[in-house]
Amino acid sequence: MSAQKIQIFDTTLRDGEQVPGCKLNMEEKLVIARQLELLGVDVIEAGFPVSSPGDFEAVKAIAAQTKEITVCGLSRAVEEDIRVAAQALSGARRPRIHTGIGTSESHINFKLRSTQEKVLERAIAAVTLAKSFVEDVEFYAEDAGRTENEFLARVCEAAIKAGATVLNIPDTTGYCLPEEYGAKIKYLYENVKGVDRVRLSTHCHNDLGLATANSISGVVNGARQIECTINGVGERAGNTALEEVVMILRQHPYLNLDTNVNTKLLAETSAMVSHMMRMPVQPNKAIVGSNAFSHSSGIHQDGVIKHRETYEIIDPRDVGVSDSSIVLTARSGRAALAYRLQKIGYNFDKNTLDKAYASFLQVADRTKEVVDHDLHILVEQENLVAAS
Amino acid sequence: MSAQKIQIFDTTLRDGEQVPGCKLNMEEKLVIARQLELLGVDVIEAGFPVSSPGDFEAVKAIAAQTKEITVCGLSRAVEEDIRVAAQALSGARRPRIHTGIGTSESHINFKLRSTQEKVLERAIAAVTLAKSFVEDVEFYAEDAGRTENEFLARVCEAAIKAGATVLNIPDTTGYCLPEEYGAKIKYLYENVKGVDRVRLSTHCHNDLGLATANSISGVVNGARQIECTINGVGERAGNTALEEVVMILRQHPYLNLDTNVNTKLLAETSAMVSHMMRMPVQPNKAIVGSNAFSHSSGIHQDGVIKHRETYEIIDPRDVGVSDSSIVLTARSGRAALAYRLQKIGYNFDKNTLDKAYASFLQVADRTKEVVDHDLHILVEQENLVAAS
Repeated sequence: MSAQKIQIFDTTLRDGEQVPGCKLNMEEKLVIARQLELLGVDVIEAGFPVSSPGDFEAVKAIAAQTKEITVCGLSRAVEEDIRVAAQALSGARRPRIHTGIGTSESHINFKLRSTQEKVLERAIAAVTLAKSFVEDVEFYAEDAGRTENEFLARVCEAAIKAGATVLNIPDTTGYCLPEEYGAKIKYLYENVKGVDRVRLSTHCHNDLGLATANSISGVVNGARQIECTINGVGERAGNTALEEVVMILRQHPYLNLDTNVNTKLLAETSAMVSHMMRMPVQPNKAIVGSNAFSHSSGIHQDGVIKHRETYEIIDPRDVGVSDSSIVLTARSGRAALAYRLQKIGYNFDKNTLDKAYASFLQVADRTKEVVDHDLHILVEQENLVAAS
Repeated sequence: MSAQKIQIFDTTLRDGEQVPGCKLNMEEKLVIARQLELLGVDVIEAGFPVSSPGDFEAVKAIAAQTKEITVCGLSRAVEEDIRVAAQALSGARRPRIHTGIGTSESHINFKLRSTQEKVLERAIAAVTLAKSFVEDVEFYAEDAGRTENEFLARVCEAAIKAGATVLNIPDTTGYCLPEEYGAKIKYLYENVKGVDRVRLSTHCHNDLGLATANSISGVVNGARQIECTINGVGERAGNTALEEVVMILRQHPYLNLDTNVNTKLLAETSAMVSHMMRMPVQPNKAIVGSNAFSHSSGIHQDGVIKHRETYEIIDPRDVGVSDSSIVLTARSGRAALAYRLQKIGYNFDKNTLDKAYASFLQVADRTKEVVDHDLHILVEQENLVAAS
């Protein structure tokens, strides 16, 4: 039996990009969108068109550029938002409008200052309007993680009736535990009329470090789309990291769930997004951190040399890392440095390499071991420019 | 009913420190150990005494310095290792020897080139020897995550019989899913004779981004100790992040599980470890990332201003962050910069501040928004020194 496909909805350019310091220009957004298409994601959330003219233009340009992939624009359950999103997406081959409203007590009482019935009406109106522009309408129930299941099911049913094709169940504050989030998805899967005609989607935040586990719990319990970002970038502690959920499904074939992602492009996509967003990835980040495949302790090195699977569950080549990391020290020569720099994307001419080597020796003397993130800092500090 | 106490076993100085680039000197290790004691962890794994004279001396010094806290030293199931660990710990008020051996097929066949029966014998011999030196002996079944439960239970029973007080069940390769890891702990809790006399411990690695979720699944299913590190530092993608598991238990009181950690010291402990290990924490790291409490999108800012709980489940003050982050731009003045620098630990005199401000403006022009991690980089690049 072939595995069921889980759609990957990448929101690096929307939820990821709305973070302090992460702003991208139009050219960068187009480059990232192209890379995401190569990577094999199913949906790109390209922006929030009504939020700014820049966002509008970016969504429009991405819509025009992409082919088979679905391009999605965010909107609130507000007429103007939806009209502007539709306009931005008008050139897309496969447009999707993403619209929705807060459904939790906290959102209804304090943010919207409204009632459940009025929220329900606005949800229906929003989906109906979006549906008049595009076939593919995703509805989000903001703060679903803290919304009581019964009301959530009512909202979902109403959205389906109004024409929604995807239902996004966000754990907006990152509060849920995996079991709890999975149970919520299961409840909806079992209790919402018409749920078999639509796709339930996870959208988890990482405030407690659980976004990845919650997303997996969601798809194990019936969701068929995961919303995520490269490197887990996003508001506050970020979103579900695309590279983590994709590799979990790949590494646990007995779950019988898989994605269309070409994992060999994960490392380079991560490096591109980190670089363009100036958003460092910590060395101990799962899958894409610079230490993710490096072995330093004697016990581990010994084990890996005897048999890689002793300590490594993932072959680094499967995520585009050509080998387990070699640690550079003050005893490393120019050639080793050049090799390593090349591996992490820097191709220098002889003069620049000489400059890099001099700085490298200073760092190595101070720190004993020089790892990839030191090299990135060094290149930036010294303003080294790659050979053309 | 008051919550059951989960012991926090911090291995920042052992599993965390054995990472490329993280090497600490003796003085730094003592400073971190002191901070961990203030933070309220129950056990410090201070090192692996047989691995080097430096590690031996560090464990010895930490043992001599600390009072109520348990100080633990690692050893393999090797006589020399255990003797040296006992020697290093001889000055500790509450010493614990941590010893163990690989129990999975992969470890037994490829790393140890041995058999299950021989591994069982070595486990018993190791615990027995350790027990002749100290009362408190923790046994680890390396790669327990991939060990079949039946054999794992046999090893655990044998270790208890030989005198072990704590049984560490590591997911050494970070492969388990939360449900699977929890089921393993539950199996041991229900099937190991004498398990009520000991404490089961989780030790999870983050290769797939699941270390935190697995640890929580472990304690929900009967484990009573979590092994973890500050910022999740550690081999490859690291260990369970202390700050995440502690805050999950604190934020979910219905689990009826809690720790002795003073959460108000989490932010400063994180900053100290990151700084001393030169191990950056990514801005979107849960709990301790520089963006963990920053709100940038208009929707979120609006929600938070109306009612903090709309988007924030944790009061930043509870983890030692004095307020949700303010984003600096090129329009920010000297006073705003000085305020922010002070918040993140830099107290500069007027001349140094002038120098910082000049660099800040350059960065702000380039990046639009300047966040805490930019300031840390700026201070390091410019070699700015704090006022005494």
